[in-house]
Amino acid sequence: MSEFSIKDIDDVIHGRIRLGIMAYLIGAQRAPFKTIAGALDTTDGNLSVHLRKLEDAGYIAIEKSFVGRKPLTEAVLTQEGREAFVNYLDAMAKLGAG
Amino acid sequence: MSEFSIKDIDDVIHGRIRLGIMAYLIGAQRAPFKTIAGALDTTDGNLSVHLRKLEDAGYIAIEKSFVGRKPLTEAVLTQEGREAFVNYLDAMAKLGAG
Repeated sequence: MSEFSIKDIDDVIHGRIRLGIMAYLIGAQRAPFKTIAGALDTTDGNLSVHLRKLEDAGYIAIEKSFVGRKPLTEAVLTQEGREAFVNYLDAMAKLGAG
Repeated sequence: MSEFSIKDIDDVIHGRIRLGIMAYLIGAQRAPFKTIAGALDTTDGNLSVHLRKLEDAGYIAIEKSFVGRKPLTEAVLTQEGREAFVNYLDAMAKLGAG
């Protein structure tokens, strides 16, 4: 039965904002903080919290640089993050197998 | 880009316990309250709250009957619930399309 596969679902990814971040990065691979905040329609503070949680899990890296004198913060999907997201989607798909 | 499909995700289903209920019922179609509580390792009170929310959305029906003199409460997946769960899984799968 499929009920046990609910435990295979990665809580780090399942949260709605984090799921949005991962879905964005699986396509874009890297994106500026501001771009992600705009795409997900979230506040900077809220986004920071969730990026930190993904970073702590090793799923993304945060890279800080300068474009001229302007600081640029980017989130970059790691290989581990890509694999975790693929596994997450697999676990979700299995829920439908009943 | 996939970021907008995050809004297509059905919040009624996305909650972890409700997701477990739906995943259970997509296979079993109907199940006793106690069976679901055991499968998802949740308390009766917690399960009741989430069943109510799914019932309010029209995704399940709650049927009460007697087996001999023992009351039996069952959750039954509705056609609407089945469609909503399929749509939910479709939306999740699209997140991986990047």
